[in-house]
Amino acid sequence: MTLLRIELVTIGDELLLGYTIDSNAAYIARTLAEIGVQVVRRATVGDDVDAIAAALRDALDRTGAVITTGGLGPTADDRTRTAIASVFGRILRRDDVLVARMEERFRALGRPMPPNNVVQAMVPEGARVLQNRHGTAPGLWLEDARGRWVAVLPGVPREMRGMVNDTLLPILRERAGADGAVVLSRTLRTTGIGESALAELLGPDGGDTVDGVPLAYLPGWAGVDLRLTVRGLPHDQATHTLDHAAAKLYARAGRYIYGEGDADLADVVLALCRARGLHIATAESCTGGMLGARITAIPGSSDVYVGGVVAYDNRIKEQLLDVPAELLRTEGAVSEAVAKRMASGVCARLGTEIGVAITGIAGPGGGTPEKPVGTVWTAVHVDGAAHAVGRRYVGDREEIRQRSAQAALDMIR
Amino acid sequence: MTLLRIELVTIGDELLLGYTIDSNAAYIARTLAEIGVQVVRRATVGDDVDAIAAALRDALDRTGAVITTGGLGPTADDRTRTAIASVFGRILRRDDVLVARMEERFRALGRPMPPNNVVQAMVPEGARVLQNRHGTAPGLWLEDARGRWVAVLPGVPREMRGMVNDTLLPILRERAGADGAVVLSRTLRTTGIGESALAELLGPDGGDTVDGVPLAYLPGWAGVDLRLTVRGLPHDQATHTLDHAAAKLYARAGRYIYGEGDADLADVVLALCRARGLHIATAESCTGGMLGARITAIPGSSDVYVGGVVAYDNRIKEQLLDVPAELLRTEGAVSEAVAKRMASGVCARLGTEIGVAITGIAGPGGGTPEKPVGTVWTAVHVDGAAHAVGRRYVGDREEIRQRSAQAALDMIR
Repeated sequence: MTLLRIELVTIGDELLLGYTIDSNAAYIARTLAEIGVQVVRRATVGDDVDAIAAALRDALDRTGAVITTGGLGPTADDRTRTAIASVFGRILRRDDVLVARMEERFRALGRPMPPNNVVQAMVPEGARVLQNRHGTAPGLWLEDARGRWVAVLPGVPREMRGMVNDTLLPILRERAGADGAVVLSRTLRTTGIGESALAELLGPDGGDTVDGVPLAYLPGWAGVDLRLTVRGLPHDQATHTLDHAAAKLYARAGRYIYGEGDADLADVVLALCRARGLHIATAESCTGGMLGARITAIPGSSDVYVGGVVAYDNRIKEQLLDVPAELLRTEGAVSEAVAKRMASGVCARLGTEIGVAITGIAGPGGGTPEKPVGTVWTAVHVDGAAHAVGRRYVGDREEIRQRSAQAALDMIR
Repeated sequence: MTLLRIELVTIGDELLLGYTIDSNAAYIARTLAEIGVQVVRRATVGDDVDAIAAALRDALDRTGAVITTGGLGPTADDRTRTAIASVFGRILRRDDVLVARMEERFRALGRPMPPNNVVQAMVPEGARVLQNRHGTAPGLWLEDARGRWVAVLPGVPREMRGMVNDTLLPILRERAGADGAVVLSRTLRTTGIGESALAELLGPDGGDTVDGVPLAYLPGWAGVDLRLTVRGLPHDQATHTLDHAAAKLYARAGRYIYGEGDADLADVVLALCRARGLHIATAESCTGGMLGARITAIPGSSDVYVGGVVAYDNRIKEQLLDVPAELLRTEGAVSEAVAKRMASGVCARLGTEIGVAITGIAGPGGGTPEKPVGTVWTAVHVDGAAHAVGRRYVGDREEIRQRSAQAALDMIR
């Protein structure tokens, strides 16, 4: 089984100087992998005709199939068209149909077209123009007599994505070969368990493969993602192999798995509560509103989430959450007892079935030997009683806060 | 004036497959630019000895100076050591001092060293070992008889950064040449004004340069950043030129500039309030706690920020913020009157000098012809009176929420 191998050339001073992170490259690699096209090398060059041309020549000589992004804008910075015309030995000609289409686009926006933009209608002889639904810069497809090709895409992520999906995928799907071999992945998201404990759970061999399918551990603040990857099989067979391997992971670690792909634990929790007709209120101290923000990031959260109290100062914990001043004094704000009272207090005040509370020390200051930075209590009030869990997280302030919000959501689940 | 030109080779299947975005490359480019080292090309290859070796050979032939990241881990995936030894024609030897140091590191963590890790102590003959304060994989520096060199860094961002700062910068600073030419940038952060309005304000030529210094407009949800870049001047002269150009930007657009570099508007607002002894409380609807989370992301925010109410449901706006039910019914939750009452209500309830409120329609649902998605009212209560501003933001749900929180902070400012 062979996969179609291509190279990627991303163009722009911004990328090279490090002011922009190259997210286009990742998007293209992931999207093409699903139809069996494998990016085997990537080069990044600045807005310089010679550098672009050299990178294109190298990639064409090596692999014969190249996608470029960037360098198609109307300003003098953008030199991809000139470079590609020179590599293929073609003349750049003005495409009057494109000019008319661009003028129309600007008319619709109620603005005159800046004269600069005509540059975007310069097309190398024999090139196929790829439509851009989201912007003025059209893409290009060039092929030489030996069948070597370059697809030229804009650098603006939205325009690039549109063109990949509308135009490039259909073209490449045809070329990816009749055997239809693909690279397919499936990611299972876990939380509440560390990487090494998970590896122990998953197998005597440390769980590096499942039935021969390579397994990668990807830890982050949301938990450890488990990624299975199959290469070089036809789509059906790859899916089948992944399903089998995933089933084993579910059997061994199912209780830690909250979703797949880019599933968000907040979304999962909202769906569970919605199905049971339950409502949630939040009481946050060290996370300062982050848990509420995560929940409300999900469209439609309003039928489950009613709101909450950010009780950053202890006075607010007393006034709005009815935590006794005495308790704050004797136990401290970061304690099991206070976390429970916060959860119960917000339930009572906001009239919900579920109340969830977070109180902790996110650092960098505020730690003590008994309660070091990273100490966090999360509590959930449900069915008339509050339950709390104390943990110690590592990481910086933001990471501790993110892990705390995730742990609170996991408690609700 | 010449700058030291180098190439970057980033290594890893994860990068090539697009599962990891290459933030190391951006960090290295930005950090080295400040000492006059310019990254002129970047290549990314997978964990494959031949591909790594080919990329290294190309880069050495072209530029003669290469930094690699990744492929130094203990697993069989990591092949950088083998590739680099083959390119330089050196034998890999086990470095017993390194083995001892690694064993000690694991002892300190209270764990036995996995046998795999010994691979990390394999060093090509004649290579200089670069210490890794943050992990077990040491870096390498290899140089050939013609003075061509490769610096090999780990791929884990924290380890890579430590090694760049501890070891690589001092080495490269010496090589960057006696003339000391640098690439220097200065970024001024604006908010509350669009890109085109800003360009008009900054000059008759659209503000593409300021006194000959190129000016880039970088729009985002936080506002439009203005970046000035000077290349190929000695450090002193570059700083002087940037200072002059920045002064012009301040003179023309100063009221929109809230900081420089990676300044955070929340930090700026906290400092202003702290200096005046003022306290802030937040009342959030569509942002669901995001504004509180942004403020409390700043260490030490507790002396200014006391907390807030997330009033996602209208009932909470009535109960905890004393917004009259009548007003919610006649004006709607997303209105000037409700925003003002929320700001005043949270001030009164939480006993602060400043109350800030956000209510809006973040979408994707909930829009009407009169109040389309993106309609957001922000209000600030201060000195006994509330002021509100209504805006319509474009973008997706998350972007509208982020822009709303930023606008609320800007109102406080």
